[in-house]
Amino acid sequence: MNEKHGFARAHTNIALLKYWGKINSDLILPANDSISLTLDKFYTDTEVTFSDEYTSNLFYLNHQLIDVKKMQRINRVLEAVKSEFGYQGFAKIESENHVPTAAGLASSASGMAALAGAAVSALGSHTDLTNLSRLARLGSGSASRSVFGGIVHWHRGYDHQSSFAEQIVSEDQIDLNMVTIVIDRRQKKVKSTLGMQHTASTSPFYPAWVEATNQAIPEMISAVQNNDFTKIGELAEHSAAMMHATTLSSKPAFTYFAPETIQAIKLVEQLRESGIECYYTIDAGPNVKVLCQSKNITRVKRFFASYFDQDQLVVAKPGSGIKFTKN
Amino acid sequence: MNEKHGFARAHTNIALLKYWGKINSDLILPANDSISLTLDKFYTDTEVTFSDEYTSNLFYLNHQLIDVKKMQRINRVLEAVKSEFGYQGFAKIESENHVPTAAGLASSASGMAALAGAAVSALGSHTDLTNLSRLARLGSGSASRSVFGGIVHWHRGYDHQSSFAEQIVSEDQIDLNMVTIVIDRRQKKVKSTLGMQHTASTSPFYPAWVEATNQAIPEMISAVQNNDFTKIGELAEHSAAMMHATTLSSKPAFTYFAPETIQAIKLVEQLRESGIECYYTIDAGPNVKVLCQSKNITRVKRFFASYFDQDQLVVAKPGSGIKFTKN
Repeated sequence: MNEKHGFARAHTNIALLKYWGKINSDLILPANDSISLTLDKFYTDTEVTFSDEYTSNLFYLNHQLIDVKKMQRINRVLEAVKSEFGYQGFAKIESENHVPTAAGLASSASGMAALAGAAVSALGSHTDLTNLSRLARLGSGSASRSVFGGIVHWHRGYDHQSSFAEQIVSEDQIDLNMVTIVIDRRQKKVKSTLGMQHTASTSPFYPAWVEATNQAIPEMISAVQNNDFTKIGELAEHSAAMMHATTLSSKPAFTYFAPETIQAIKLVEQLRESGIECYYTIDAGPNVKVLCQSKNITRVKRFFASYFDQDQLVVAKPGSGIKFTKN
Repeated sequence: MNEKHGFARAHTNIALLKYWGKINSDLILPANDSISLTLDKFYTDTEVTFSDEYTSNLFYLNHQLIDVKKMQRINRVLEAVKSEFGYQGFAKIESENHVPTAAGLASSASGMAALAGAAVSALGSHTDLTNLSRLARLGSGSASRSVFGGIVHWHRGYDHQSSFAEQIVSEDQIDLNMVTIVIDRRQKKVKSTLGMQHTASTSPFYPAWVEATNQAIPEMISAVQNNDFTKIGELAEHSAAMMHATTLSSKPAFTYFAPETIQAIKLVEQLRESGIECYYTIDAGPNVKVLCQSKNITRVKRFFASYFDQDQLVVAKPGSGIKFTKN
């Protein structure tokens, strides 16, 4: 019996300039560059064991066996890693998500990054993080960014080789934190893959979205490098609002907003006008994420605690990149 | 003493393909064509008396004297009418709004159309309705459409002469009704003039809005001529959603939506999925207007009465064009 083990821990991330729409759904090549903040606390631990004794892939998520035939994207990552190292056998994947549902955050970014990391680690060297971001991307676009810590830039590229992530600044170099207001814990009605596809193919505003986002990329990089919170927040808020504008302009129109999403947006504006600087960002769901500096986390949390339950408020700070050992 | 009297009654209207943004704010030339439904019940009655004995314009709204120096747009309409008829004196304007605040509808459309109509009627002939729509436009863009009944097309044009409204079908030829859900009776925070100006000058999606709306115009005309309620509703809903998408994409982003706006949008979708065909439209404010056929008015009203108060629901049917006699 010839077994090969690998482990990886990857953190989830939140996009500051959003990824919204693909130009190639097999390779997951996005229409526009994106920039994200990797988050501490929320991560996936994944162990991969390759063995020539296995007759199929096995995937355990939080100790439960999942039907891997449905897991097209997991298979795509495994196949890409195996082909890179010339390996032929099957894999057992044991994954543990530490991305609480309560956080209202997607676990696919950390999950696919950890899977790619553990698989690469099992079969060979994991030192080429740029290449790891390419492999993670095949599982989930945003996973490419979860390979790195701090603030990360995903270059859209035009083929597998040219579409990868890189770090702009590390988690120690940026003062950017996030208070999530969890509005709805349920699975969203329109999954992001479907939502971005419908938008890209029906919204008359979509080409302008792609252009505006790509134009904002160098501005955001410069804002991050200067630790310019105001500029980062303004660009992030505008990107989120524009992304949700594309769903409203698609045909038929749809929105990820819940009534409380509008409430939270107006509260963010109110808090900001009162002198506590903060900005919202919103992904493909109703939850509102409030960006703020460390000095204001407590005040932001206290303000929103007057309008939402304590367990609807989740704080996250900048997180580190992928790790190949536990703890 | 040489007095000249004129009277006009004009109804308000709701845009099905929205007017949103000007290319010339003196002449109120819009960036795109628009199409509207004139509404019954909600109207303004205006009496204009010109006299060479007056030393300034006097404006009474609902029997209250208003400071006319603040009324730049009223003066603009009066000046244009006076210059057209070579008249030099001043005017007393007595206006009565029958557009209840509760209806959540703007009164500027009916108000400026009635003003232009009464002034023209006082000084000369009012038979040229096309020209009357030009004069009304100088007071408020949407007023150009309130000159006609039924479904009305405002040609954007490129100068005063070429920017006018015309009727597509009369109020008897269309089965299109509106149930307004009044969410907020207060004056909106961002007035529409300011909102459209901010959007037009900062939204990267604005050029696509103009193009998409102008492209939808012939589709809507054809849908109206065929009394194709489904097509009218789909085009109207998409136009409204797109208009609100432009505000979300402006920088800084803003929205006219209140939390209950999202609630009402989702209820419209739910009601439609249940088999009662209806579509939403929303102007520069939080109130949601539900378009439906006559046969469904009662059912639509009953459905929304489970979620909103009875006095938050206002029904309107197709209304007639401007009249120059009372009753």
